[in-house]
Amino acid sequence: MINKNTKDQPVGIFDSGVGGLTVAKAIIDELPNENIIYLGDTARTPYGTRNKEEIVKFSLELTRFLLKKKVKCLVVACNTISANALEEIIKISPVPVVDVIAPTIASVSGRAGAIATSGTISSGAYSKVVVMSKACPLFVSLVEEGITSGIEVDKIARGYLLDFKKAKIDTLILGCTHFPLLRDVIAKTMGSKVKLIESGKPTAKKLRQILVKNGLLRIKSNPRHKLLFTNNLGRVEKVGQNFFGKPLPGKIGKIDL
Amino acid sequence: MINKNTKDQPVGIFDSGVGGLTVAKAIIDELPNENIIYLGDTARTPYGTRNKEEIVKFSLELTRFLLKKKVKCLVVACNTISANALEEIIKISPVPVVDVIAPTIASVSGRAGAIATSGTISSGAYSKVVVMSKACPLFVSLVEEGITSGIEVDKIARGYLLDFKKAKIDTLILGCTHFPLLRDVIAKTMGSKVKLIESGKPTAKKLRQILVKNGLLRIKSNPRHKLLFTNNLGRVEKVGQNFFGKPLPGKIGKIDL
Repeated sequence: MINKNTKDQPVGIFDSGVGGLTVAKAIIDELPNENIIYLGDTARTPYGTRNKEEIVKFSLELTRFLLKKKVKCLVVACNTISANALEEIIKISPVPVVDVIAPTIASVSGRAGAIATSGTISSGAYSKVVVMSKACPLFVSLVEEGITSGIEVDKIARGYLLDFKKAKIDTLILGCTHFPLLRDVIAKTMGSKVKLIESGKPTAKKLRQILVKNGLLRIKSNPRHKLLFTNNLGRVEKVGQNFFGKPLPGKIGKIDL
Repeated sequence: MINKNTKDQPVGIFDSGVGGLTVAKAIIDELPNENIIYLGDTARTPYGTRNKEEIVKFSLELTRFLLKKKVKCLVVACNTISANALEEIIKISPVPVVDVIAPTIASVSGRAGAIATSGTISSGAYSKVVVMSKACPLFVSLVEEGITSGIEVDKIARGYLLDFKKAKIDTLILGCTHFPLLRDVIAKTMGSKVKLIESGKPTAKKLRQILVKNGLLRIKSNPRHKLLFTNNLGRVEKVGQNFFGKPLPGKIGKIDL
C-alpha cells in the first residue's frame, strides 16, 4: 500500500565503500527531496578484487541491513555488486532495486568500450554493448590513495587506454564508481571526441522513473541524509568528500552488520 | 619420531597468492635439497586489504590443507598473514612454523623504517623495531599489474618514501613479498646509503636453523617442487616467474580448499 508514510521512507543506497558516494551525489542532485540512507562496507572494501561468492554474501548482508531500515527502494551504487549479485539481491528484496549497470548500458550508443574493476569485467556485464573492456585496478588504487592527477596518473592512463584508442571507440563507459574522480585524466588521454559515460546520472534518472511509476516520489522538503559505514570513519571523513564532490550531505555513523 | 621418511616430507610454504614465490626462491636457493609444496590462495588474493578476521579464517584453511599433505614444517611466506594470523596458525600446527616477520626483524639494526600492505602496517608488527612505517598499497597494485619501472613508478615511490628520507633512516624493511620486484626503484629513491632488507633470505636461514635443530634437514638430491594455487593458473603462468626471478621450479596445479 502506497501512502504518505511510504513516500517518506528513505531510499537505501549501498556500496562496497566510499565510491558509491559519486552515485549518491547524482541521486541527491536529481531527487533533492528524498530521504536517503547510504551504507558503505568500508570494513571489507574493496570488493573489486573479490570472487563472486564473497561479493554475493556481503551484498546480501548490506541488503538485509537496509531492508530492516524500511527503505522504499534500493540502489546498488557499486558496479562490482551490480555485476555479480544483482539477481540475488532482487530475489530477497520486497522493494524495487535499481542497479548502476543496466541504466548506464541503456544510455550507450555507438562504438563503446568499458573500464571497470577486475570483478566487474570478469562478470561480462558490459560485454554485450562494448567492443572492448578492460580491468583497470590501478585506477581504483590511485583514487583510493587520493592521487588523481600528475605524470604518474597520465602514464598509467595511457597504458590502460592505448588499446581503446587503437580500437577507435567513440564512447567509454567509466564502469566503476571511483573513475569519475579520474575523469579529467581519462578525457585528456582519450581526446575530446570520445564521450565518457558515468553511472551516476543514468542511475539517478532510472531511480526517478521507478519512484514515479510506483507513486513513491517524495515532494516535501527538508530531507534527511544518513551516511553509515562499517569501519574507518576517520578515513571516510578524510576522503568522502572527494567522492561526493563537496562536503558530505549528512552526519556519518558506524554500524555493525 | 624423526626418521628418513620424515626428512623426505615436504616443507609447506603458503601465501595469499604469488608474492610468496619471492620467499620460495630464497628457500630453494638456501635449501636446494628440500621437497617443497607451495600453496598460493590466488582465488582470494590480495589479503593485504582484508580485515584480521578474514585473514585468520583463510590462513587456517591454507594451514589445514598443507598439514593434510604431511608437511614437516610450515613457512608463512606472506607478511600480511604473519602479522595477523601467526598465533592461530601455531595453535593448530603440530609441526614447526616459520614466519617472514620475526626473522626479518631479528636482522634489523640501526634507524629503520618499514613499508608493507595496509593489513601488515595496521597490525603493528614492525612498530617495535622501526622509527616509521607506512602502508604502500599502490606498490602492491603496480607489481600485480607487472609495472615495476618507469616514471610513474618513480613518482609513486618518491611520494611514499619522502617521509622516510626526511626521517633519515639507514635501513628500510621491504615488509611485503611483492616489494623485492620494486627493489631497484626503491633503492634509487632512498639512495645508496640506505640498506634494504627483504624477508626471503632471513626467513630461509631461519628455516635452515629449525630443520637442523629438529633433525629434519634433507640431504638427498632430486627434490620435488609442487606449486598449487586456488585459481587463475593462467595468470600464475604469466606472472609467477616475475616473482620467482626465473622459470618456476615445478609444475603448477589447481586445488580447491
